[in-house]
Amino acid sequence: MIAPDYGKTFALWREGAAGAWQDYTRHAFVEGLRDGSLPREAFVQYLIQDYVFLVHFSRAWSLAVVKSEALEEMKVCAATVDALVNHEMSLHVSVCATEGIDEATLFNATEAVENLAYTRYVLDAGLQGDFLDLMAALAPCVMGYGEIGLRLAESKAPDTPYADWINTYADPGYQSVCASVGSMIDGAVARRIGDLATSPRVNALQDRFSMATTLEVGFWQMGLNTQ
Amino acid sequence: MIAPDYGKTFALWREGAAGAWQDYTRHAFVEGLRDGSLPREAFVQYLIQDYVFLVHFSRAWSLAVVKSEALEEMKVCAATVDALVNHEMSLHVSVCATEGIDEATLFNATEAVENLAYTRYVLDAGLQGDFLDLMAALAPCVMGYGEIGLRLAESKAPDTPYADWINTYADPGYQSVCASVGSMIDGAVARRIGDLATSPRVNALQDRFSMATTLEVGFWQMGLNTQ
Amino acid sequence: MIAPDYGKTFALWREGAAGAWQDYTRHAFVEGLRDGSLPREAFVQYLIQDYVFLVHFSRAWSLAVVKSEALEEMKVCAATVDALVNHEMSLHVSVCATEGIDEATLFNATEAVENLAYTRYVLDAGLQGDFLDLMAALAPCVMGYGEIGLRLAESKAPDTPYADWINTYADPGYQSVCASVGSMIDGAVARRIGDLATSPRVNALQDRFSMATTLEVGFWQMGLNTQ
Amino acid sequence: MIAPDYGKTFALWREGAAGAWQDYTRHAFVEGLRDGSLPREAFVQYLIQDYVFLVHFSRAWSLAVVKSEALEEMKVCAATVDALVNHEMSLHVSVCATEGIDEATLFNATEAVENLAYTRYVLDAGLQGDFLDLMAALAPCVMGYGEIGLRLAESKAPDTPYADWINTYADPGYQSVCASVGSMIDGAVARRIGDLATSPRVNALQDRFSMATTLEVGFWQMGLNTQ
Repeated sequence: MIAPDYGKTFALWREGAAGAWQDYTRHAFVEGLRDGSLPREAFVQYLIQDYVFLVHFSRAWSLAVVKSEALEEMKVCAATVDALVNHEMSLHVSVCATEGIDEATLFNATEAVENLAYTRYVLDAGLQGDFLDLMAALAPCVMGYGEIGLRLAESKAPDTPYADWINTYADPGYQSVCASVGSMIDGAVARRIGDLATSPRVNALQDRFSMATTLEVGFWQMGLNTQ
Repeated sequence: MIAPDYGKTFALWREGAAGAWQDYTRHAFVEGLRDGSLPREAFVQYLIQDYVFLVHFSRAWSLAVVKSEALEEMKVCAATVDALVNHEMSLHVSVCATEGIDEATLFNATEAVENLAYTRYVLDAGLQGDFLDLMAALAPCVMGYGEIGLRLAESKAPDTPYADWINTYADPGYQSVCASVGSMIDGAVARRIGDLATSPRVNALQDRFSMATTLEVGFWQMGLNTQ
Repeated sequence: MIAPDYGKTFALWREGAAGAWQDYTRHAFVEGLRDGSLPREAFVQYLIQDYVFLVHFSRAWSLAVVKSEALEEMKVCAATVDALVNHEMSLHVSVCATEGIDEATLFNATEAVENLAYTRYVLDAGLQGDFLDLMAALAPCVMGYGEIGLRLAESKAPDTPYADWINTYADPGYQSVCASVGSMIDGAVARRIGDLATSPRVNALQDRFSMATTLEVGFWQMGLNTQ
Repeated sequence: MIAPDYGKTFALWREGAAGAWQDYTRHAFVEGLRDGSLPREAFVQYLIQDYVFLVHFSRAWSLAVVKSEALEEMKVCAATVDALVNHEMSLHVSVCATEGIDEATLFNATEAVENLAYTRYVLDAGLQGDFLDLMAALAPCVMGYGEIGLRLAESKAPDTPYADWINTYADPGYQSVCASVGSMIDGAVARRIGDLATSPRVNALQDRFSMATTLEVGFWQMGLNTQ
């Protein structure tokens, strides 16, 4: 499968993350969603952690609004916060509700260290650096899920019980979020750097993206370990 | 006119700000909107500054999402960011468009020092303190405009050219924002403090609210001075 | 051994962390320092990670200066940054230099996830909450090392090669840092809360302290796992 | 007088600020310090405001430690916090003590809006942008006072009562702070941008420096207005 087009900065970062990107987007947990072999219990535990992840990930996207320096940046980031808080988190709430887990329980669930490590790393990227440092740390989750969703929609087992999850990320609505975030990041790079490949920041930004990708691998692994 | 009911914390803070609250909500600029005597040029200059104000005020509400510690806080603040970026700012854009001023010009307008002082004070309240410090600094603008809108809707001159502005804030939609923000602040106080009046923080939070109110007075004055 | 007197807030938090505090201060890694059985390689790998830890821990203490609201808070936190950057980190630099590892290598070492999780959690406690949220997350490291240093100074094997490390934290200079931080925290609680035990914040602050303590356990375990 | 050598980035920013830099460094308040004509009362009121300025300016330099990405950056910024909190602020405390104003009174003095506007703008530059955005906003105060100190030391009236103030900033110790900050900024530019003059960020960083310079002019003017 061809990598989806989420902008040229993402393409550069994705290529730079190399093995870690493969480990993330083709993790055994992902394969379990695709072929349906992932135990229900592991999926529910993952959803609980992912709900708390989204709480802090929404905080990080809100920090991106704080750090915006252009109207386009502010609008895309504010829309992403809205999409996360009012839509993506709802999927988790409704699935967990069928398991008898209410939203207050989700909000107060104890975070696994792999979960906490990831979101706090992203938030600190925003505190320490600028808008682009934060974007490099936010991109792997947003775009990786888009890429996984597309691939799994094409290749999933007809009877996988995780079709709803897959469709959430394969959905044109979610894909257009990835495309608009990618395009906005390209604009943010043009505005602050110009040519990323020859910038002194190229390695530091790649490190942010690659570290966040590695933390995604740890997140899937945590999901598997709880089964 | 009775003060509108925007929660008990707001009522306490409003009373504590005393003269400054009167200076703000009954400023000569406000009276000029009410009776229509405010020169158009002053209004347009005010709108330009207020647009830039809203950019940074949206950043401050986004910082409130970053600082949320309860689901209700996160949802109300994220909704407020959306209301600001996607609705309130649009009023400014459309009015300024009729004057031949486009949104890019608004976004890049040079801030007056009275404007800059206010929004950066609010943002720093969030950086230095907790969610409540930020709320105390955000409340005067949100609720003061609600109170001004209600009063002016009842008492405005029939031919004031500023009826649209007045209706924006008298509108039930805006009033329900004030009520839900006020209720959410009451919850945030209960969650962190309990009884505000007997808390060691009572003075520090009042100082935040009162300083932001004083900065509102300066903002109106700046609007008058540009005519 | 009686717990050292680092203030009444610390005493409350330490008691509230219960088992986690024991797991941290009596971890097998600590016992290996005491009796000298810890392999040199594990110690060096720990020092490298701990150097990077101190970089971000210094950033967190600097954030505490940003969040100070009293002169005493600002002075104690600024002095702690100075002690960390100009003294405690020097110990790591000199020991690592004897192993042929220079400071630039230390500064750029890749962080283990257990390391990153801890410091970014602390930094985010400061971004999300107020000065006390940050203090609750900073205290376990500062005071735990003080308590470990005191206990090991009394009970260490005469020939442990880790006497310098132990003395660094048993040293009256380090002990007085713990005492002054503890006293400053008591003042910060009085200034913002009054009686902590009956405050609505008691659980949230305990959770910060307990989570940081748990992350300390993970840090020692990482040190053991690298041998 | 030749501009002092505080690095090539500062030289570029200083030139870019043009008239505002002149207005700041040759303000009537500065001339009053030089020839001794500044009324004592104006000087004392200025010192009170400047003490509160230094509180928040120290917070901003601490934020610079939080935002450091290189060892040199961290060390220079931590040393600057120490110099501000433990040295420069002491001058204010001792002068004000002779006027019967103690340090607690200074710490709690109400900020003039010109004062508040400046420090909160600087702090927000750090929250919104990266280390360089913060440096561009911090530089005018640090280096401008160095330049003023040098010029006034050469040209001051023999009997000006403000010789101590002038010597504080003409002092080789303060001059070496300016030189090391300037050199560190040059390194920070090399690390993140390369050639500043051809970078897409050149205007945004100049705007930060120029706005902070303009806010310095307002600060002097506030000092004059209180006489």
